[in-house]
Amino acid sequence: MPKQVDHEQRKQNIAEATWRVIVNQGMEEATVRNIAKEANLSLGALRHDFPSQESLLAYAMNLVKERAGLRIAAIAAQDLPPKDKVLGMLLEIVPTDEQTRAEMEVWFVFTAYHNHKRDNFDAHHDGISGLIRHILEQLNRLGLLKQEVQMDLEADKLYALVDGLAMHALFDPQRLDKERVTRVLESYLFSIGRFPE
Amino acid sequence: MPKQVDHEQRKQNIAEATWRVIVNQGMEEATVRNIAKEANLSLGALRHDFPSQESLLAYAMNLVKERAGLRIAAIAAQDLPPKDKVLGMLLEIVPTDEQTRAEMEVWFVFTAYHNHKRDNFDAHHDGISGLIRHILEQLNRLGLLKQEVQMDLEADKLYALVDGLAMHALFDPQRLDKERVTRVLESYLFSIGRFPE
Repeated sequence: MPKQVDHEQRKQNIAEATWRVIVNQGMEEATVRNIAKEANLSLGALRHDFPSQESLLAYAMNLVKERAGLRIAAIAAQDLPPKDKVLGMLLEIVPTDEQTRAEMEVWFVFTAYHNHKRDNFDAHHDGISGLIRHILEQLNRLGLLKQEVQMDLEADKLYALVDGLAMHALFDPQRLDKERVTRVLESYLFSIGRFPE
Repeated sequence: MPKQVDHEQRKQNIAEATWRVIVNQGMEEATVRNIAKEANLSLGALRHDFPSQESLLAYAMNLVKERAGLRIAAIAAQDLPPKDKVLGMLLEIVPTDEQTRAEMEVWFVFTAYHNHKRDNFDAHHDGISGLIRHILEQLNRLGLLKQEVQMDLEADKLYALVDGLAMHALFDPQRLDKERVTRVLESYLFSIGRFPE
């Protein structure tokens, strides 16, 4: 393996160990020491890649965002009817399988913690708000939105709906399984747009 | 003051001290010792009312729920047009002033913590889901819902919207002030119902 790839791979392994510590032990336990242990690395080896806890946490959180972003971009590039494409993208944010659930849990614990601590790390730039706006603009450009839809209000509404669904799907996956989440989102889309069958 | 009232008042003071500790210091610090200090009581006096930390936290959380419930019941009893009544009730859940914001923060920190700890305390029975269903049923009975609305899906949708808005209003009160939250909820109501002006 070329050295660069190896290095990137090791950083990703450390990020994944960070996620496991956050999910299993909580944010308070996400210390450099505990993460090194979880990643089977010496403290020195970990500090080589991440000189501070802050840089490690920032990297681990960005990786969550990046991976979700890549999956969403892949769906955006597919040749799908608009409604199915939008649904597919939103289903990458609302957790309905093990992988997205773990990502969401990391993000949730992290956000709750940092909101509470009121520190400088901006955990809210998760990109979801921008994605929502992009989706609505695309639908608008395609002439699929009902006339009465006000873009600004709709963006706030869909953002809240998606984050609320994500939280409920995380806490109550039995009630909100993938089929249920899909039907709720579909019902929302029909309330704001007209989609050819 | 009769002794019974006095006793109830002291318990409420302790609950309020608990909220302050949770909001200012975090859930991990919500120990019986710290709460007694915040309430200006001896550990023994506090233990007289609440023999365990669990009973204290359960009481403090129930009081949040109870107070919101009382405000919502007061609005339900008012003689208001249906849309204004529904809006008023939902605005008691989405925090848009200092009091509801503090309540929401307590609830949020508490829920995040207990979800994480996966213990037996059921923090999700906050009554919001039941209220949402009740609101939709009332609108349906009054013939105000659009024909295509499917009650079950709509209940999941509005529940997610309200919780998402509550979270966003808590984290980002500048963007989601009371006027904005009102307009988003109004836009939602118009998407599912027809309301006489």
